[in-house]
Amino acid sequence: MALLTRTTQGVFAIAPTPFNDDGAVDFDSLSRLTEFYSRVGVTGLTLLGQMGEAPKLSHDESVGIVRHVLKRTDVPIVVGVSAPGYAALRALSTEVMSAGASGVMIAPPNTLRTDDRIVAYYEGAAAAIGEDVPFVIQDYPLSFSVEMSPSVIARIASTLPGCVMLKHEDWPGLEKISTLRRMEAAGDMPRLSILCGNGGLFLDFETERGADGAMTGYCFPELLVDVVRHTAAGHRDAAHDVFDAHLPLLRYEQQPGTGLAVRKYVMMRRGLLTSDAQRRPGAVLSATARAEVDYLLTRLARSDSRVTLVA
Amino acid sequence: MALLTRTTQGVFAIAPTPFNDDGAVDFDSLSRLTEFYSRVGVTGLTLLGQMGEAPKLSHDESVGIVRHVLKRTDVPIVVGVSAPGYAALRALSTEVMSAGASGVMIAPPNTLRTDDRIVAYYEGAAAAIGEDVPFVIQDYPLSFSVEMSPSVIARIASTLPGCVMLKHEDWPGLEKISTLRRMEAAGDMPRLSILCGNGGLFLDFETERGADGAMTGYCFPELLVDVVRHTAAGHRDAAHDVFDAHLPLLRYEQQPGTGLAVRKYVMMRRGLLTSDAQRRPGAVLSATARAEVDYLLTRLARSDSRVTLVA
Amino acid sequence: MALLTRTTQGVFAIAPTPFNDDGAVDFDSLSRLTEFYSRVGVTGLTLLGQMGEAPKLSHDESVGIVRHVLKRTDVPIVVGVSAPGYAALRALSTEVMSAGASGVMIAPPNTLRTDDRIVAYYEGAAAAIGEDVPFVIQDYPLSFSVEMSPSVIARIASTLPGCVMLKHEDWPGLEKISTLRRMEAAGDMPRLSILCGNGGLFLDFETERGADGAMTGYCFPELLVDVVRHTAAGHRDAAHDVFDAHLPLLRYEQQPGTGLAVRKYVMMRRGLLTSDAQRRPGAVLSATARAEVDYLLTRLARSDSRVTLVA
Amino acid sequence: MALLTRTTQGVFAIAPTPFNDDGAVDFDSLSRLTEFYSRVGVTGLTLLGQMGEAPKLSHDESVGIVRHVLKRTDVPIVVGVSAPGYAALRALSTEVMSAGASGVMIAPPNTLRTDDRIVAYYEGAAAAIGEDVPFVIQDYPLSFSVEMSPSVIARIASTLPGCVMLKHEDWPGLEKISTLRRMEAAGDMPRLSILCGNGGLFLDFETERGADGAMTGYCFPELLVDVVRHTAAGHRDAAHDVFDAHLPLLRYEQQPGTGLAVRKYVMMRRGLLTSDAQRRPGAVLSATARAEVDYLLTRLARSDSRVTLVA
Repeated sequence: MALLTRTTQGVFAIAPTPFNDDGAVDFDSLSRLTEFYSRVGVTGLTLLGQMGEAPKLSHDESVGIVRHVLKRTDVPIVVGVSAPGYAALRALSTEVMSAGASGVMIAPPNTLRTDDRIVAYYEGAAAAIGEDVPFVIQDYPLSFSVEMSPSVIARIASTLPGCVMLKHEDWPGLEKISTLRRMEAAGDMPRLSILCGNGGLFLDFETERGADGAMTGYCFPELLVDVVRHTAAGHRDAAHDVFDAHLPLLRYEQQPGTGLAVRKYVMMRRGLLTSDAQRRPGAVLSATARAEVDYLLTRLARSDSRVTLVA
Repeated sequence: MALLTRTTQGVFAIAPTPFNDDGAVDFDSLSRLTEFYSRVGVTGLTLLGQMGEAPKLSHDESVGIVRHVLKRTDVPIVVGVSAPGYAALRALSTEVMSAGASGVMIAPPNTLRTDDRIVAYYEGAAAAIGEDVPFVIQDYPLSFSVEMSPSVIARIASTLPGCVMLKHEDWPGLEKISTLRRMEAAGDMPRLSILCGNGGLFLDFETERGADGAMTGYCFPELLVDVVRHTAAGHRDAAHDVFDAHLPLLRYEQQPGTGLAVRKYVMMRRGLLTSDAQRRPGAVLSATARAEVDYLLTRLARSDSRVTLVA
Repeated sequence: MALLTRTTQGVFAIAPTPFNDDGAVDFDSLSRLTEFYSRVGVTGLTLLGQMGEAPKLSHDESVGIVRHVLKRTDVPIVVGVSAPGYAALRALSTEVMSAGASGVMIAPPNTLRTDDRIVAYYEGAAAAIGEDVPFVIQDYPLSFSVEMSPSVIARIASTLPGCVMLKHEDWPGLEKISTLRRMEAAGDMPRLSILCGNGGLFLDFETERGADGAMTGYCFPELLVDVVRHTAAGHRDAAHDVFDAHLPLLRYEQQPGTGLAVRKYVMMRRGLLTSDAQRRPGAVLSATARAEVDYLLTRLARSDSRVTLVA
Repeated sequence: MALLTRTTQGVFAIAPTPFNDDGAVDFDSLSRLTEFYSRVGVTGLTLLGQMGEAPKLSHDESVGIVRHVLKRTDVPIVVGVSAPGYAALRALSTEVMSAGASGVMIAPPNTLRTDDRIVAYYEGAAAAIGEDVPFVIQDYPLSFSVEMSPSVIARIASTLPGCVMLKHEDWPGLEKISTLRRMEAAGDMPRLSILCGNGGLFLDFETERGADGAMTGYCFPELLVDVVRHTAAGHRDAAHDVFDAHLPLLRYEQQPGTGLAVRKYVMMRRGLLTSDAQRRPGAVLSATARAEVDYLLTRLARSDSRVTLVA
């Protein structure tokens, strides 16, 4: 499959990992999900991110999930390979790249501080996976407690040819996109593909600021596709109209710790997942929370006809 | 003025502290703001919170601001008195209470960990300000890095008669409201007034969960008043309709670090502040960001006729 | 082998994991280490702790290391099984307990806040490994950013019969030991075995405060054995004399991030490890630092005849 | 008085702020302390640091303390002026510099992340206090949660002529000193005076690595003077001998949160402070802890004849 490049655009959906109620990986739902993502027009998929509960999977399970999806789709696959040591990171990267993945995603260990140490960490990681493997920097301070300034990202991108993409989910983050694009234009760093995460909470403006698209897991990836498409076509109001219609639910999903429970619940209501179970420890939605999500879905259905649910 | 009680309800607007471009307190704008808040129907005001740039004010400036507002309004005033030591906390509390404030707000020092230490901190603070002074616990983990479980809040409320209100801004926080109300109903803790902050990002559901209202500083406090009023009247859809219309802007304002710059900019555009300056160090909005806010205001004006701006 | 109990005493040495320069586990050195620990009189061994670079090992490597040591020693073995998800934690725990380990050690995930969530985490972990498996709470705020008050430890110990030991490495921590022993005496919690870590930096007083011994990895475990033995015999001055002689080196080893490099270097100088390599990413000692350690060893050798080194 | 320069050397003792039991500043003890510090040969004094409980003092109290000491000593005085806003920082700096202080010390706000933001913070601070005012960077990650790499320090020193000194208390920190001295030698940054803090825990090696001395508050500043003097004279063993004799007590004093209570208690036992009270909230030593300190003092008195105590 085509490798990620520094000009990759579009929507890479972060796929949740489906589990049965007993905690086993639910491959049937994974097949259904994979088919769904292709159908709604995402450009690619990202597997085994934080929201894919990657740290709760064994190496063999991780590889199994990636192989399963690769067999069932033509879109490029990015695989999260973050690990405390480079050995595990390399092992998983090597295996999924040889299986056909298009690139890997690497989050910084949450104890990293200072620009120099962040750069050194990525240099070591790149050496571990191999210079030719395209990788994505995951820049998510709210989750990882590591803050990367534009100049750090520039240093990593300038030094490491494998660094082709930024998963941008700093918050606030709009100025960071503008700054990076300015630095690229000034020749201070190579161009990076920038796909935005953070649940999509600012996707409406991020695309206007110069992002190449989205990489996040909102339970209606159709919305992400719409926003990216409308903005690319210069239809600003249309992009914001559809974004605003989804924002109440999107905001509800973007709650640290419980967001994945919301996401899986909606995907179960959409008939994509058989169960909304997470591996333990994980958040569980209360009955009231489920009713609130149902209410938001009902309201959303008034403006978005794609909101159809199973009982 | 009437003191805060455990059944206080409504909207307490967090007032920004207006500064001139040279950093001096702008008392003319403060007068205008005070009149504005009364006019739009808030129940009370909160001065000298984090978003009031309290840590950047001297003791004398703080007292001057409180006296200025107290002279110009009839609504109850809550004053943020957080300080690293109890001596400063007591000094400010004593002075503003004798000037007519209705209560004080106390945030936890950001190094506090463990339930026991949080409880001990509030015990010491309550002893410092005096048992008869009503105080508000500010529960804002995103800003203060201190997480308070419902049982900690119950311990503080059960032990300290002065603890009458929770400024609830945990995120996620909906279940916390439900849990506290359940504990109250079960007799495990006294009733607290719960007013919600966190920029209002979940106010639509927080009021449904049992919160008594809002205490936050969104640049259109009219929205907060609307949501609380509609919910109290049982008009669920109306509450969500007006909330959803404001959500794109509200979400834009709720960005850590830059939110206050957005808030002050909009309040300047509304003719309430002469300048949107913050005391340094503080965030500054880029031209692009201002244009984004302007765009959001234009969109909002289509559904909310109260959005009128000065050039 | 005998299981850990709530009255276990003595010195459990935290064993480093020996690696060859290429990053492979060095089983020859592991054999030598195991024999060494028995020879110097430790009561037990702890494998796969943070200082054993556990997060950098695969499941199979982890099990292999434990089996290798179990075959070569009669002392009880505690195994670190901390993992982001309960599935991996259970898998490793089950395997090592059936292989003959005496208990497992569980560190809290570094995002845990509030007493209730800490207790809930250990309840889930205990359910995962099984009620009959003795486990050790690792209480190391400096490393894990999780602070456990005495009342949290009491709640865990009171609820979970498997909780038999506290690896105490809070800093400051002396009062915590006294408080726990007071709570036990007052019947507020069951007795726990308390073994002290934090590099041994306060072991001289921790044993006097009521700790049952040490669980740490200082490069001269003989010192730990001496201090525990002298204190148990009531020889206070003797305990402090030997402790103070080692303190300059012990303090040098107790540096976050670089401490393990010092430890492995000294163990290499003592002929126990063939290489002082760590799996990447890991700290590396500069030539100056090595010379400083050599100087400290030379000074220590004047008072402790057991300091014999290879070239 | 002479201003701090980039070649300032020696021992700047961090003075605690003496309080009476009722929380009032104890100026009699402050006079006695000031006389004591001169007598034991410190090069300078640092007032209003974290260990001087600066955040618990009002502006007027702070100025009063500085003036009181300036009248009673000839040694240069550094004053901690850290504050959340630049206005307060400038106000205190201006006042103490005009009163005769030799420089000010500025700690970073504990929310600062990324090299760029740290540099920007110091640029703003330097602009606030004025370009001609010599200032000290306080680099204490354990206390402030802000990590500064050598390159950040180099950027600040290269840009801001007022930046003349580093209060080095990173941990581990030995390599940082070596790196900074190497960068200076290579012409990559101007020379800075480096005085070491962190309670003095590594002062024996820090001076060997190129530090210019100490700036810390150990309860026996005589020890700091000895180590710096012996090292400067090339008497390595003598420096380590006296250091090692004090290390058990020094280590006991270097406990986060309780260290100041130990320091004040010893200074009270030495007849320097009338009370060991801290302003609230602050740590209090248990009877057991006091007995432990007494025991350490008794042991220390065997090798250091300057250990004389009042009952």
